[in-house]
Amino acid sequence: MDFSLVLNEIHDKLKNRNSEGKLAAYIPELAKVDPCKFGIHLLSTDGKEYCVGDYNEKFSIQSVSKVLSLSLVMSIIGEKVWDRIGVEPSGNPFNSIVQLEYEKGKPRNPFINAGALVLADILVTHLKDPKKEFLNYLRILSGNKNLQYNEKVAKSEKSVGYKNASLANMIKSYGNIENDVDVVLDFYFHQCSIEMTCAEMSKAFLPFATHGEAYHLPEPILTKSRVKRINAVMLSCGFYDESGEFAYKVGLPGKSGVGGGIVAVQPDQFSITVWSPKLNEKGNSVLGMKALELFTTKTGISIF
Amino acid sequence: MDFSLVLNEIHDKLKNRNSEGKLAAYIPELAKVDPCKFGIHLLSTDGKEYCVGDYNEKFSIQSVSKVLSLSLVMSIIGEKVWDRIGVEPSGNPFNSIVQLEYEKGKPRNPFINAGALVLADILVTHLKDPKKEFLNYLRILSGNKNLQYNEKVAKSEKSVGYKNASLANMIKSYGNIENDVDVVLDFYFHQCSIEMTCAEMSKAFLPFATHGEAYHLPEPILTKSRVKRINAVMLSCGFYDESGEFAYKVGLPGKSGVGGGIVAVQPDQFSITVWSPKLNEKGNSVLGMKALELFTTKTGISIF
Amino acid sequence: MDFSLVLNEIHDKLKNRNSEGKLAAYIPELAKVDPCKFGIHLLSTDGKEYCVGDYNEKFSIQSVSKVLSLSLVMSIIGEKVWDRIGVEPSGNPFNSIVQLEYEKGKPRNPFINAGALVLADILVTHLKDPKKEFLNYLRILSGNKNLQYNEKVAKSEKSVGYKNASLANMIKSYGNIENDVDVVLDFYFHQCSIEMTCAEMSKAFLPFATHGEAYHLPEPILTKSRVKRINAVMLSCGFYDESGEFAYKVGLPGKSGVGGGIVAVQPDQFSITVWSPKLNEKGNSVLGMKALELFTTKTGISIF
Amino acid sequence: MDFSLVLNEIHDKLKNRNSEGKLAAYIPELAKVDPCKFGIHLLSTDGKEYCVGDYNEKFSIQSVSKVLSLSLVMSIIGEKVWDRIGVEPSGNPFNSIVQLEYEKGKPRNPFINAGALVLADILVTHLKDPKKEFLNYLRILSGNKNLQYNEKVAKSEKSVGYKNASLANMIKSYGNIENDVDVVLDFYFHQCSIEMTCAEMSKAFLPFATHGEAYHLPEPILTKSRVKRINAVMLSCGFYDESGEFAYKVGLPGKSGVGGGIVAVQPDQFSITVWSPKLNEKGNSVLGMKALELFTTKTGISIF
Repeated sequence: MDFSLVLNEIHDKLKNRNSEGKLAAYIPELAKVDPCKFGIHLLSTDGKEYCVGDYNEKFSIQSVSKVLSLSLVMSIIGEKVWDRIGVEPSGNPFNSIVQLEYEKGKPRNPFINAGALVLADILVTHLKDPKKEFLNYLRILSGNKNLQYNEKVAKSEKSVGYKNASLANMIKSYGNIENDVDVVLDFYFHQCSIEMTCAEMSKAFLPFATHGEAYHLPEPILTKSRVKRINAVMLSCGFYDESGEFAYKVGLPGKSGVGGGIVAVQPDQFSITVWSPKLNEKGNSVLGMKALELFTTKTGISIF
Repeated sequence: MDFSLVLNEIHDKLKNRNSEGKLAAYIPELAKVDPCKFGIHLLSTDGKEYCVGDYNEKFSIQSVSKVLSLSLVMSIIGEKVWDRIGVEPSGNPFNSIVQLEYEKGKPRNPFINAGALVLADILVTHLKDPKKEFLNYLRILSGNKNLQYNEKVAKSEKSVGYKNASLANMIKSYGNIENDVDVVLDFYFHQCSIEMTCAEMSKAFLPFATHGEAYHLPEPILTKSRVKRINAVMLSCGFYDESGEFAYKVGLPGKSGVGGGIVAVQPDQFSITVWSPKLNEKGNSVLGMKALELFTTKTGISIF
Repeated sequence: MDFSLVLNEIHDKLKNRNSEGKLAAYIPELAKVDPCKFGIHLLSTDGKEYCVGDYNEKFSIQSVSKVLSLSLVMSIIGEKVWDRIGVEPSGNPFNSIVQLEYEKGKPRNPFINAGALVLADILVTHLKDPKKEFLNYLRILSGNKNLQYNEKVAKSEKSVGYKNASLANMIKSYGNIENDVDVVLDFYFHQCSIEMTCAEMSKAFLPFATHGEAYHLPEPILTKSRVKRINAVMLSCGFYDESGEFAYKVGLPGKSGVGGGIVAVQPDQFSITVWSPKLNEKGNSVLGMKALELFTTKTGISIF
Repeated sequence: MDFSLVLNEIHDKLKNRNSEGKLAAYIPELAKVDPCKFGIHLLSTDGKEYCVGDYNEKFSIQSVSKVLSLSLVMSIIGEKVWDRIGVEPSGNPFNSIVQLEYEKGKPRNPFINAGALVLADILVTHLKDPKKEFLNYLRILSGNKNLQYNEKVAKSEKSVGYKNASLANMIKSYGNIENDVDVVLDFYFHQCSIEMTCAEMSKAFLPFATHGEAYHLPEPILTKSRVKRINAVMLSCGFYDESGEFAYKVGLPGKSGVGGGIVAVQPDQFSITVWSPKLNEKGNSVLGMKALELFTTKTGISIF
């Protein structure tokens, strides 16, 4: 299937409808991004690429990194991760601490901030040089050896990261963070600060469409069973309090970040990344959501 | 694919592991069911049937009926249903009233009791003889012209239905129920009391695997787009507070009821129904959950 | 102490500042009351009366009745009432169902609606002719043999009483209401519909200032110990989510109702009733709150 | 009135009933205290002292310090404190973060931890040498120039103070803490670590029984109006989720701490302090609660 036409159509239709939404103003460094950026990149499982717009510019991956930290954690400790984190949708805004207290420090799922902090804690425990090794993992997945943390963004997030500090301390109070809170937060803020292009992100997520194989790598990154399971968690928990909406309208497993990126996969077919920095009130890219809804509507593609 | 072998294997393995779980004791009539019942029935999109155990005995469909009332509502008022009900997972036990109050009487999704009560209200408004027409709809879908309400069960539920009465009154207080609360509750208790066999349920749900077509009917029951969307809601909301767990372990859209029935679909392939009356603490059939997990693990089938 | 001067001063100062607040519009019958009404009546423990404005006009006592139903319940079953109702402030709006569900059907205190419904249930259980006997109790306390239920108001409340029906059904689902929900609600709506003047209300509450004695009755209505305890509950729970504010600014035990009445007592000195129908957003009379704050500020009177 | 007899009676009756309750085990240093300690001290407004048991041994004042930090804050910024903290009971356990998030970082009252952290922040802002000046304030109030912070206890609390760190960061995220979170926490942990005897505490709280005057000081510590208001907050919020219970059973304004101390005042008559380290599940001294209930029952004293 040639996706060029449909991607161009969508890009044309949406590129000037950029009035809605706001930049992630609470992170000073992200508030400086050009709000008109808009790119789409699709990578099919047979290696073909389809792209349009600003698909080759770097953006802050933010919460999209949570899927990759989950896959790294699962490659290290496997299903044991679920002793410390649930797989249920949260039914509350993404940084809510209420549910965390109610459930005694066990985050509902790995894609709310609380869950990602526990993932970060696990990586800090198990990796010798956590920041270096995590970066290296993403360099391999994305095929870009020069991927970097954006120290400015990491610092910017730390300067306003009181909610995350509150979450981390709450989890620590229940014993579900093992390491020093500041070390875990530092790792987490760095993880979120990594920058990728749409093309790199589609490549990094292709294994979730290929049952674990990355076409540029000799070995599968993940087992077939883990891919299936992570996809299931993306589908039910990937978009904070809008996960049901995304499943309903788009019908693909995916993950968004407050940098404005959204990645989604269709098993056996492709991974697709959209980037547009203005967010709706739930913290998801306005154009990203629309573009993917149009894409599945026009192509009739969906896992359902 | 011949599913006979795998279904028999699963049935053999699980049939004697019936110690866990409890009957839905809060509904007096359901507490009388033989707890050892265990049946599986799979209907492929090309009309082949695979079955084992008590697949041909009637059980109370209970909350499974919510999917069918949603499909009937959507065939009447289409997407307008979402003005009155959300599509987000609830993140709370199935009869929780907290979220309802917090969100001003708009239920989070159609598969929690609050949402199903609003669906019931819509049907009461739009159908001339709601109970008769709903029963007729299920008779057509299931291919069984003798399907009946079980008046004993409906009465039994009513006699203990204070939580549902509390929910309905709360929704009414926000103006999101139009009809008399008692009329809506009466319809709802009847809807839940219908009895089907596994075979009938697989048939009734086949359109969710065939993009809307029922092989025994001349016309599609639903549009392709609505089937996709209802499947998405099943996947993220079909199992109360265990929806994420089911998506994670089974990976199919499905719906459970406190009668012990679970139905699931694999688009383009089949619908499958399992029935075993003993429930886990989340209100889902213990053996039903296990059987479907084994089934997708053994066959490698999943939408992900 | 001669309170005439200070009551007149307060009345003069406030009577034209009636712009703030709204009538209890959710009860149709109460929305018809003249919003300019404003009366104050103080009854000292030695029987002297001080009054100003519309102190001799009838108004709907509404939630003020909860104190009198508590005192009647305590005279029948004593401290056993606390097996079914708590004495802690609710920290939530007055008709919130959240806390009720969280605490398994045991209302936090007798002065939120949930608690008053349990009191009503207890009276329905223990009295032969509940409505007649309750009315008779209030007739004795108020010294007015002609006190009546206002059937129009009771009916009006019933017609919109879905939140109360939701609460009552929720409590019933936990087994903390024994009688038929409709019977309990009918009693409750009648109890709230009784009409008194400020003068009658001051008289009915005098026993809470005299350790139980009513100067117009031969026998104490309550023991000294129970008066102390009910006063304590009034102080911490008498004004819904504004109880702390009232204790802070006024410093007297008291109770308000959405009819616009507020009654307060100073032990060993007096009972005082203010009536003005416009309510603040917490459901308490705007002028009533201000008048009592001015009164204790000007006189230096407070239990603290 | 000679209180010697009644205090001795109570002490005799309760001293061997020390089986219930637990030390505040979550603070390592407090878990080392001798659980059998039990002292009572009453100071009348005319300067007479009545005492029994371990009334002259030091204990950690913990949350009792919150009343004194409130009185110091009010002497500096007056009623402005209520722009940043409410006066309503919390209706939730003492370190709950739920309400805080729900109410956008404004603590419900000054006596839950969240509120006390905001008080600490205000003192850090307004005092040149906060720790020195606060200690000095308590030395003056208690009449003991040698009062000290217990650095071991402060350090011990810090080592497990993740819930407080979580609260402080949450408040900071809403902008209701101005200073560095670590500085505020350090002040707070020190404030709680101060040690007093029952005799010193009764002296420090006498101004709350004398409308502001300390008999050993030339000037009133507080205005009459502020004393009244702080007493009202103590009555409705002084015992966490057991405030209503204390008001109901004891009927005096008071404050407890997890060091096992409870202080209460009867306006115009006395201040009274009880110390016994074993706590009930709400975090209040078991014997302290019982002793004060017996005291008011036996003497008939109460503000109601």
